[in-house]
Amino acid sequence: MVIPLLLGLAIVLIAAKVGGWVVRRMRQPAVLGELAVGLLLGPSVLNIFGMDYFKNAHTLDVLREFGELGVIFLMFAAGLEIQVSDLLKTGRAAVLVGFLGVVFPIGLGTLAGLQFHYSLISAEFMGIVLAATSVSISARTLMELGRLRSREGLTLLSAAVVDDILAILVLSIFVGVTLGGGTQPWQLIWIAVRMFLFLVAAFLVGLWLLPRIVDWVRRLPISEPVLSVTLASVLLFAWAAECLGGIAAITGAFVAGVGLARSTQQAEIERGIHTLNYALFVPIFLVVIGLRADLRQLSGSDIGLTALLCLVAIISKILGCGLGARLGGMSWRESLRVGTGMISRGEVGLIVAGVGLDAHLIQPNLFTDVVVMVIVTTLVTPPLLRLVFCWGEPQECPI
Amino acid sequence: MVIPLLLGLAIVLIAAKVGGWVVRRMRQPAVLGELAVGLLLGPSVLNIFGMDYFKNAHTLDVLREFGELGVIFLMFAAGLEIQVSDLLKTGRAAVLVGFLGVVFPIGLGTLAGLQFHYSLISAEFMGIVLAATSVSISARTLMELGRLRSREGLTLLSAAVVDDILAILVLSIFVGVTLGGGTQPWQLIWIAVRMFLFLVAAFLVGLWLLPRIVDWVRRLPISEPVLSVTLASVLLFAWAAECLGGIAAITGAFVAGVGLARSTQQAEIERGIHTLNYALFVPIFLVVIGLRADLRQLSGSDIGLTALLCLVAIISKILGCGLGARLGGMSWRESLRVGTGMISRGEVGLIVAGVGLDAHLIQPNLFTDVVVMVIVTTLVTPPLLRLVFCWGEPQECPI
Repeated sequence: MVIPLLLGLAIVLIAAKVGGWVVRRMRQPAVLGELAVGLLLGPSVLNIFGMDYFKNAHTLDVLREFGELGVIFLMFAAGLEIQVSDLLKTGRAAVLVGFLGVVFPIGLGTLAGLQFHYSLISAEFMGIVLAATSVSISARTLMELGRLRSREGLTLLSAAVVDDILAILVLSIFVGVTLGGGTQPWQLIWIAVRMFLFLVAAFLVGLWLLPRIVDWVRRLPISEPVLSVTLASVLLFAWAAECLGGIAAITGAFVAGVGLARSTQQAEIERGIHTLNYALFVPIFLVVIGLRADLRQLSGSDIGLTALLCLVAIISKILGCGLGARLGGMSWRESLRVGTGMISRGEVGLIVAGVGLDAHLIQPNLFTDVVVMVIVTTLVTPPLLRLVFCWGEPQECPI
Repeated sequence: MVIPLLLGLAIVLIAAKVGGWVVRRMRQPAVLGELAVGLLLGPSVLNIFGMDYFKNAHTLDVLREFGELGVIFLMFAAGLEIQVSDLLKTGRAAVLVGFLGVVFPIGLGTLAGLQFHYSLISAEFMGIVLAATSVSISARTLMELGRLRSREGLTLLSAAVVDDILAILVLSIFVGVTLGGGTQPWQLIWIAVRMFLFLVAAFLVGLWLLPRIVDWVRRLPISEPVLSVTLASVLLFAWAAECLGGIAAITGAFVAGVGLARSTQQAEIERGIHTLNYALFVPIFLVVIGLRADLRQLSGSDIGLTALLCLVAIISKILGCGLGARLGGMSWRESLRVGTGMISRGEVGLIVAGVGLDAHLIQPNLFTDVVVMVIVTTLVTPPLLRLVFCWGEPQECPI
């Protein structure tokens, strides 16, 4: 039954654009408005998609799939603006940002857990939940600010790849050691080797083969040859990242983008993906984040613990990633910007928390707190990024 | 679980483009190759989406929703090429084509049913199943041939609206009278009045309000303002057509397109919707038609009846619609083209047959025959259309 989906998609699109417009008038990034409007339509307030009309047709499920495609296409678009040589220049800083950006949240998260009388293992797990950054919101915000290709933007994107790898490795080790799921050292080594091999292979295929394929299909007598082959490639890269490489799908899409940034057809691809993203997929992605959150669950929670978790999540990334950037040779101001860009958390934090819930490492109420933490870090990132990028340089800020 | 969907979408996109390319080399419309490749991937041959990997994630269901969006956006794009004044010029011919294009299939279908010793009611029902045209395949083929705005193309599009209305009315009357579902005459009148009121309202809103809205949002500081508002409008029109007007969603989308054809932003909308359609939604729509068909079911059927049904379906539309066009003042050649363009059947035939199956008016094996009839009429339409349009005028044919 596609009919309720038509109405649902229309509501989400209109709401996203109205939300974006309102916050732009308040001189904030549109992405904040699109997230907020999702919260408004979702179970927290209006609960529009809880109506039988939409529920019976699984409208929210399909919207979610659209949203997942949105974040994949968004990270591809971010990669498309980036030359691989620029990424390599940020190498040392990016590794330090990624590394300290995982160490600090785990350390501070563990301390916070112990403060609330959790067992050491549970407290450590709380730290691991805080480790994985989700850089898509920051990438979107920096695109809006026109600063994705700044030194800070490039460092952020490279560091997100390092962060993705480290966070998954740490979780694998922790689960192997603590839960004793029969994970052997050689299995952990295999996980690391597989990630490394996949990334090398993906970069080689992306940089060498993809531009050639696109250049070849361009002259075939099919409609939209360049863009359709591009979309198929992005989808394949994203799928392979998860299924072959064991890393996040968005990292695969990002690598495909970096590869096609070298294509002679880069301008056409960018125009097409911009249309697809901003007319349809990205607004849905941002609204669905809000739609999936249920702030009413908060009422049963310990407000003190919730607030502490959010605070630790924000401060640990600013401190850890900022310190990494500073040690990597960036200025204090640049370091603050990189640290701020790494604040937002996403799916991975929720997935990790889910693993912990199943293994009885954390209580259900802590899971709700993690959901709130993801929402809060997502919502504060766009305005904070605008603040640290435009502060003292208003002439360079488009909004 | 979005991961299998990524692979599924990539397979469908690549297969569609390869299929389109191969048949273009054979000098046939690409749409034929995209349909055929769907049959190849589907349960009839390879059954790719029958694998557990895809099945567990309901990949085919989501692909189907994408396909439904594809046909809606396709009919919007068809409308976008058409001025309402052109449509009105075809008025008399279109009404005759639509009317005789419903009368002939019902008449010949009933005769064919009686020939196979069906009861009169069952035979009549078989005729009604054959009544509803699905014009999207023809619209896509004529776009490929660059002939959508020819006199024949315009007549086809207007006649499809008439056909949609008449076929639904006839079904409502038949169900009301035969099944005695408590349908009163005033209810049938209400169905007709509602359709009429909806179409008048939709044309007024589409022609007068939509272009003004698009012109206004164009200057707002949001990303892709014109296209996102356009997509939301198309979705709302399609939804309203089904839920408020009681007619097909694609008719609503078509009206939205005719309205926005008058917009000052028509060129930008057309460019954006072309990208969206041909890089993503339309290939999925065409492949999914093939994916959903299972030709293996045929083995249990009476080949004679199946062949007769297909033959009656094709001939009744060519004769009925062709005669309508001729009576409407078109030449024999033009009439043949219009009749050929009305051959393809789609969803509506299957839905009607489903109603009959539930009411025990037709046997399950006849339902399979209807499925085959839909596939056959869909597959023969693109090459036949190319034949009747390019025959004797090869210089005007791009393929």
